[in-house]
Amino acid sequence: MLDDGKLTKLQALCDAAVPGHALPREFYSDPDVYEADIRDYWNHHWIWVGHVSQVAEPGAFFLFDYGPESIIVVRDREGRLGAFLNVCRHRGSRVCVARSGTARVFSCPYHAWTFELDGRLRRATHMDEDFAPEEHGLFKVHLRVFEGLIFVSTGDEPPELDEGLAGMRDAVAPYRLDRLKIAHEASYPVPANWKLAIENYMECYHCAPAHHDYSRSHSLKDPDSITPELRAAMEAEVEAAGLLPAKFGRDSLAAPVGMDFWLNRYPLYPGYTTGSKDGALLAPLLGNLKAPVAAATDMQIGILNNFLIYSDHVVGYRFVPRGVQQTDIEMVWLVREDAEEGRDYDVGALTWLWHVTTLDDERIIRVNQEGVNSHHFVPGPLSSMEWGIRTFYAGYLDRLRAAATS
Amino acid sequence: MLDDGKLTKLQALCDAAVPGHALPREFYSDPDVYEADIRDYWNHHWIWVGHVSQVAEPGAFFLFDYGPESIIVVRDREGRLGAFLNVCRHRGSRVCVARSGTARVFSCPYHAWTFELDGRLRRATHMDEDFAPEEHGLFKVHLRVFEGLIFVSTGDEPPELDEGLAGMRDAVAPYRLDRLKIAHEASYPVPANWKLAIENYMECYHCAPAHHDYSRSHSLKDPDSITPELRAAMEAEVEAAGLLPAKFGRDSLAAPVGMDFWLNRYPLYPGYTTGSKDGALLAPLLGNLKAPVAAATDMQIGILNNFLIYSDHVVGYRFVPRGVQQTDIEMVWLVREDAEEGRDYDVGALTWLWHVTTLDDERIIRVNQEGVNSHHFVPGPLSSMEWGIRTFYAGYLDRLRAAATS
Amino acid sequence: MLDDGKLTKLQALCDAAVPGHALPREFYSDPDVYEADIRDYWNHHWIWVGHVSQVAEPGAFFLFDYGPESIIVVRDREGRLGAFLNVCRHRGSRVCVARSGTARVFSCPYHAWTFELDGRLRRATHMDEDFAPEEHGLFKVHLRVFEGLIFVSTGDEPPELDEGLAGMRDAVAPYRLDRLKIAHEASYPVPANWKLAIENYMECYHCAPAHHDYSRSHSLKDPDSITPELRAAMEAEVEAAGLLPAKFGRDSLAAPVGMDFWLNRYPLYPGYTTGSKDGALLAPLLGNLKAPVAAATDMQIGILNNFLIYSDHVVGYRFVPRGVQQTDIEMVWLVREDAEEGRDYDVGALTWLWHVTTLDDERIIRVNQEGVNSHHFVPGPLSSMEWGIRTFYAGYLDRLRAAATS
Repeated sequence: MLDDGKLTKLQALCDAAVPGHALPREFYSDPDVYEADIRDYWNHHWIWVGHVSQVAEPGAFFLFDYGPESIIVVRDREGRLGAFLNVCRHRGSRVCVARSGTARVFSCPYHAWTFELDGRLRRATHMDEDFAPEEHGLFKVHLRVFEGLIFVSTGDEPPELDEGLAGMRDAVAPYRLDRLKIAHEASYPVPANWKLAIENYMECYHCAPAHHDYSRSHSLKDPDSITPELRAAMEAEVEAAGLLPAKFGRDSLAAPVGMDFWLNRYPLYPGYTTGSKDGALLAPLLGNLKAPVAAATDMQIGILNNFLIYSDHVVGYRFVPRGVQQTDIEMVWLVREDAEEGRDYDVGALTWLWHVTTLDDERIIRVNQEGVNSHHFVPGPLSSMEWGIRTFYAGYLDRLRAAATS
Repeated sequence: MLDDGKLTKLQALCDAAVPGHALPREFYSDPDVYEADIRDYWNHHWIWVGHVSQVAEPGAFFLFDYGPESIIVVRDREGRLGAFLNVCRHRGSRVCVARSGTARVFSCPYHAWTFELDGRLRRATHMDEDFAPEEHGLFKVHLRVFEGLIFVSTGDEPPELDEGLAGMRDAVAPYRLDRLKIAHEASYPVPANWKLAIENYMECYHCAPAHHDYSRSHSLKDPDSITPELRAAMEAEVEAAGLLPAKFGRDSLAAPVGMDFWLNRYPLYPGYTTGSKDGALLAPLLGNLKAPVAAATDMQIGILNNFLIYSDHVVGYRFVPRGVQQTDIEMVWLVREDAEEGRDYDVGALTWLWHVTTLDDERIIRVNQEGVNSHHFVPGPLSSMEWGIRTFYAGYLDRLRAAATS
Repeated sequence: MLDDGKLTKLQALCDAAVPGHALPREFYSDPDVYEADIRDYWNHHWIWVGHVSQVAEPGAFFLFDYGPESIIVVRDREGRLGAFLNVCRHRGSRVCVARSGTARVFSCPYHAWTFELDGRLRRATHMDEDFAPEEHGLFKVHLRVFEGLIFVSTGDEPPELDEGLAGMRDAVAPYRLDRLKIAHEASYPVPANWKLAIENYMECYHCAPAHHDYSRSHSLKDPDSITPELRAAMEAEVEAAGLLPAKFGRDSLAAPVGMDFWLNRYPLYPGYTTGSKDGALLAPLLGNLKAPVAAATDMQIGILNNFLIYSDHVVGYRFVPRGVQQTDIEMVWLVREDAEEGRDYDVGALTWLWHVTTLDDERIIRVNQEGVNSHHFVPGPLSSMEWGIRTFYAGYLDRLRAAATS
């Protein structure tokens, strides 16, 4: 329910954004923009919510929450995966309050409206005669599984996904991402708008100044440091490992259907085989890899979802809005499904790099927000290393404009 | 000071409400609706603020706060009860900061403007010559006492009350509610809009699923469980106790002047004489009762105020707004004025049922708000057991519409 | 970026203010008014941020924050004092996160854009070829030093200051305010709008009722208590001390160029030489004073900044907005630069009076806000002792109106 004043404001704000520059402060501080962000952007796009290993058995479910939304991901009795709004069709209560578990039905804690695992309303007492239970099942939301990674979208017409995923599949298939398990999850709350958090992930311009540990091992921090020799060594390893010899990088996207999909493999510096403190592997080689590759592979799926693939583990990233200036940086570390904690990997060592790196990010995102809040802030020009943010802004503004005029 | 945009929004929201269905999310999340709720609804209706036993002596006073408002209830030197806005007529300070006590005057802590117990301004120094003290007394608000229960309204023209109360008087007179004392008060904060809290009280559709202890003893949880035998037994007890043999219930309101007044007596299940854990009485029989009645009597006065009357004690309920999504469920347990704690009643036993029941409610009201916050929430149809909410919505929307167009 | 609805609202609010009366509640509760307060009022006026002793050496800097703004005050390598917005010209991060210290450059913690101490951009990597570093220095803000006190304004055209200061200089020169040091700083958070806090400082109508310790020694609490004898005694001391014998007071402003400047000396009651508990001096006589004067001198510079000058110390006051209803009362106690703690002064004794007085103020400002929040609050008439507030309101409303129509 948008009054005209708000629509006019949103459109004026979109028009005030200067291409190639940061966004004006209102995008990071105005409650009406935040409402639009959730309603028109997050509730349209694909969101990575988890991994199939979390819902392996019939009845297994977990929740994923963002902003004011809550999604139930559940495997029904026939083994089909589904996703539903966690909102009762009666008076709107959450129907599921457990974060995860195994269920036979979802029975609303308020008035016991009871839903099947496929969302259908099984029982609602004391309703009028003309009440149609078949019209009051849980709202089903779009769901896709890509290599074991589960994505949902609550929008009516979510962005194209399948074609993009198809273009990436061969490149990541050898990692067998479907045969992973979650080794650790962590959440880093940061008092900033979610866009400042995701922008931070979208560029490595800040890596050298802000991330000393990351920059010691990861060449993305300085494109000029990737010498032909370093790249050649990596590509030899790629071949030895049994990975596709595809050239990755900015000009050779695996799936060039837009910035919704991005796959980029870059070398680690000599002495590093993975994102570890000492350079040594942290866990068993993934999937069908025949040998380790001293590289990191960035994979972006659907704007909001980022993954970093090493030879021995994967880290997934989400920047989950909780309020206008409150965001959770959520991270998930995944290892091979048969790896055993203590024997095959150590959680402290596994998570060390991205724990310290994210603590750095929490700090710089926070002071970014503090400065952006100034009434005197004038958005400045972006550097060449921030091309990912330019693309994000363009799509973001398009989406807000489209929603405001629809 | 309402700009046109807000008025338009409020009216559009009222129009968007579908009769017989829950209200749209904005009614529970929009700060402008919350402002209207206080300004146009709470500041119009009658609010139960306390009991005459709290202001027995001349000079005795207590405060009652809701939203941004604060009311002083005080007995003046001549023994007359009055209620005043706790706002200095100078620059707006609260004039009384003690929650209760005995006063000779109210002297503003800021600049010592001093008010008599009947609200008149006694002294204000350094004012211009044309200053008229008689025009700057504390704003007096409407006050009514019904059977010892004190109600106030800060509105210019509060809803009709006297006729409704007159219709209920005989039915409750034998309980001698004026001869009670407060045995215990408690406040249960819930992170939800006040309407979700009061709606929760207005229906027993949720009792069976959510309140196991209550449902063990109180037949309201299932109208079909009230057999003719159960009702006949209750009515025999009613007669033996010396209570009016009036038939109560939905179709036989004691005071059928609208949903502002409601009186309904329903049986307790066999084995229960009052709302206790073991069914036994918790305190001396109230007033003129000659024998206990295994029943609970719901009494609603003026929409916002609810009471549950047992043979031996009374529980009063308020759902006090503190913010858009912050409400205090306030409860007051009252017993006969001459009952003595330790000898005649035990506070833990007395408060047990409604303590555990309210903890349940706190939880379900909270998850109700969480779900309602979803942008995808579509208000669903109400059940037949939620007729009280339908009536509440109708009156609520009428009032908001009337205020928005005045 | 103000939509028409907000402009209309602000203008209607300004029109609703009745001269000689308190302001309507929205001025203390509406988030849009708070935005305007920072953007149009605080970001226009002069703000006292510190003392030259804090930035004595080249490279020395400190931050001053208010609302969402942050200012760097720094002495560059050539010894020139400057002030800059603490907002990176790239994507808006704070460039300086240390509260104070010594710097060679300011290097943004995010992407290492590096700024000279005079604000010029020294280095920004990976920028496009057409990037002009000379156009991306830190925004410089206006700065003035008066007798060692540092003032800044972030506005385009700040109010006239120099003429006003010139008119005050002779009167305060003997105190040698430039030769002070900070003995103590303290911050008293109060849950109220900043205007309620500064209004509290602008009148002594509340001193007698609310400040018993202050009122025991300071005659400002009651103009009628300043007998001719008391004034004559003070003036004799003024002459003996070597201070200008100028008559101060409401009708004899030292710098009558408007309420932006105010200087008023009033006697302490017999037995008190300074603002101490026992009346005795608390620290060495300031500057060129030849003898103590049993007086307090109020000095107001540029509306927002207040100082109280005793013979032996100075207290500076700021009422710093942090949110719509969150303000920090910040106080700074200054003594002669060569005074040594422990030998020449005791911090507990030095700060006693204004610590207890400010605790009183915190309480009454808080209950003032609570009362003003009432929808029923009607702004009342001001007393003759509140003339300072009348002048403040007039200028405040003028400024908001001017900004809303520009």
